[in-house]
Amino acid sequence: MATTRPVADPEADLRVKAVFDDIRATRQTDFINNLWRHLAFDPALLERTWAEVKALMATPSSLDPLTKELVYIAVSIVNGCSYCVHSHTAAARAKGMTAVQHAELMALVALAAKTNQLATALQVPVDAVFDAGT
Amino acid sequence: MATTRPVADPEADLRVKAVFDDIRATRQTDFINNLWRHLAFDPALLERTWAEVKALMATPSSLDPLTKELVYIAVSIVNGCSYCVHSHTAAARAKGMTAVQHAELMALVALAAKTNQLATALQVPVDAVFDAGT
Amino acid sequence: MATTRPVADPEADLRVKAVFDDIRATRQTDFINNLWRHLAFDPALLERTWAEVKALMATPSSLDPLTKELVYIAVSIVNGCSYCVHSHTAAARAKGMTAVQHAELMALVALAAKTNQLATALQVPVDAVFDAGT
Amino acid sequence: MATTRPVADPEADLRVKAVFDDIRATRQTDFINNLWRHLAFDPALLERTWAEVKALMATPSSLDPLTKELVYIAVSIVNGCSYCVHSHTAAARAKGMTAVQHAELMALVALAAKTNQLATALQVPVDAVFDAGT
Amino acid sequence: MATTRPVADPEADLRVKAVFDDIRATRQTDFINNLWRHLAFDPALLERTWAEVKALMATPSSLDPLTKELVYIAVSIVNGCSYCVHSHTAAARAKGMTAVQHAELMALVALAAKTNQLATALQVPVDAVFDAGT
Amino acid sequence: MATTRPVADPEADLRVKAVFDDIRATRQTDFINNLWRHLAFDPALLERTWAEVKALMATPSSLDPLTKELVYIAVSIVNGCSYCVHSHTAAARAKGMTAVQHAELMALVALAAKTNQLATALQVPVDAVFDAGT
Repeated sequence: MATTRPVADPEADLRVKAVFDDIRATRQTDFINNLWRHLAFDPALLERTWAEVKALMATPSSLDPLTKELVYIAVSIVNGCSYCVHSHTAAARAKGMTAVQHAELMALVALAAKTNQLATALQVPVDAVFDAGT
Repeated sequence: MATTRPVADPEADLRVKAVFDDIRATRQTDFINNLWRHLAFDPALLERTWAEVKALMATPSSLDPLTKELVYIAVSIVNGCSYCVHSHTAAARAKGMTAVQHAELMALVALAAKTNQLATALQVPVDAVFDAGT
Repeated sequence: MATTRPVADPEADLRVKAVFDDIRATRQTDFINNLWRHLAFDPALLERTWAEVKALMATPSSLDPLTKELVYIAVSIVNGCSYCVHSHTAAARAKGMTAVQHAELMALVALAAKTNQLATALQVPVDAVFDAGT
Repeated sequence: MATTRPVADPEADLRVKAVFDDIRATRQTDFINNLWRHLAFDPALLERTWAEVKALMATPSSLDPLTKELVYIAVSIVNGCSYCVHSHTAAARAKGMTAVQHAELMALVALAAKTNQLATALQVPVDAVFDAGT
Repeated sequence: MATTRPVADPEADLRVKAVFDDIRATRQTDFINNLWRHLAFDPALLERTWAEVKALMATPSSLDPLTKELVYIAVSIVNGCSYCVHSHTAAARAKGMTAVQHAELMALVALAAKTNQLATALQVPVDAVFDAGT
Repeated sequence: MATTRPVADPEADLRVKAVFDDIRATRQTDFINNLWRHLAFDPALLERTWAEVKALMATPSSLDPLTKELVYIAVSIVNGCSYCVHSHTAAARAKGMTAVQHAELMALVALAAKTNQLATALQVPVDAVFDAGT
């Protein structure tokens, strides 16, 4: 099921084809996953989304590629995005995540969610020493 | 403001004192932040929470200490826990997070939240290739 | 799958039949979607929920019908309600949402989620000028 | 701070006065908390909201009053509603919640949030035996 | 689908077997639901998670067993955890939840979510009287 | 409080100055709100964020400016972003939102959140007719 009809031949649109070609070249694979196929219903949205993902996730930066995938999985879990949990868990594995690291990531997300609830339940005032703003 | 009254002299309770002592020893500081002070209203809850945080966050593991803090911040942002965002941003800085990494973490959490919404809006079906379960 | 068993012949209950009749009359269709069929396990809950939906969504008001559906979709996306994203996307289309508007709505929800995370990550203090409360 | 200006003399509006009088009578107190004062900017919204809260929270039902407050607090914590966590924690105490129960509620919400994240991270398929829908 | 491959013969691992045996003994059933089967990919995570669930959910405490399940369902709904809503609704039924109580719980969670949104939309300041912290 | 120190003289950085100048020109005001001042700690993040906000919110499109602000407020409420609720409520007022529309928006977000919880609690299967994907 989906809320948009996948475009029958998306690469007939030259803008879509250019994005798909860049995805294939960047990831060195012929596989285009469903998110991009569905976003193809609006080529401009597809272009902007891919450009942003590529710039952050497929470009060397101050955080290493696996760390970025771990953060991506964590956000996707908390937002309850089933598709994203699946796709980024696969991506993290492709970038070297071990089963031990996967289990530790889960434990960490679960712990953070737990202490988030405790701090919110208690309405703990922020310690003055944590304020970087003044 | 808070939903519980901070205990006047929390370390008069020996279980609370033992936890606070362990926090000080583990973190090598005299500072006990408000979350622990507020949790002291229930020594058992304090003990269990600290034991779990210590085991995951203050023990060498398959993820390095800074990565763990980055994941913790990410979860705390998505859960909207103001206290936790403050405390773990401070912790990440203490473990070496640079301003460039901080900015990149924010951009990453923001991007993940963005594509989470797109995938949920599209109700994209999960690609079969992502399934590790069968 | 579901957490309640759909009632075998829901309209045997006169209260359920009255609600279903009103849904059909209001929407000018014979189709009753699954949410109402499942809510029929408790006629009072069904009545109250439909009354509220009808009053806000099927009654002329200060916001036009399409705008109301767009807001409904936005909330449903952020809450991660798959059923609601599907049903309200269909409803928005029935009320004239174009593919361009759909893409723009997605981009907008994604952008709002993104800046929400940035503001929460930064813990930006609210500008005094935004305060309407004093 | 707030996004609406509190009405200067809200009870000059007879509909607002009727709601405030009913709140005072129902709760047997002269105190009207800020949520109702702020909702008074729109008397119809105030009326409908109070009617619903009164019907569920101040009317004998299949769940006892304290259980209802505990559920209310739990939802408010997960939704990150600071105001609601404060007001319903106070309400739960007024209805007899002990410090031990408060601590247990927090531990329970934290545990549920934890296993929610684990199940979402694992994308565990629902056991057929849990399906009540067929 | 799932993000981890279920272990083929999980009870070949003695730590997993011990947890599964304890689940069976505690719940007096031979049935092990999928969450535990999937967590078996990491025996330490399985052990810690079950120990915590058992301590809170299967041990007499200040909250009765049904109340604890109701709170668990509420948190799971707001977190959008499909698996958890299913498993804890089944558990609540096993502990005596009636259809009337189920309907009331849904109405309650829905009402709490509603007033959470109103308070957040209004940015209502917390009444001083609710502050337990000073 | 904040997690980053506001830059003392942000417009000494020419990239920051260019963004601030564009904000002033686009909005026809001298006022730069705190989100932009805080984002100035990373000029690249500031530039990208403003470019995206400007492209969607300050450029004529298929959705009118007020509708876009209403959707922005809705998302910000559900994400619990206090800063964003404040800033976009002010923006919506500046674009003509009346008090009646504001009240209706709140009622609508609250209703959507309510039915989101009901559909999630019931785990209602999506009607085949809503599927646009096949």
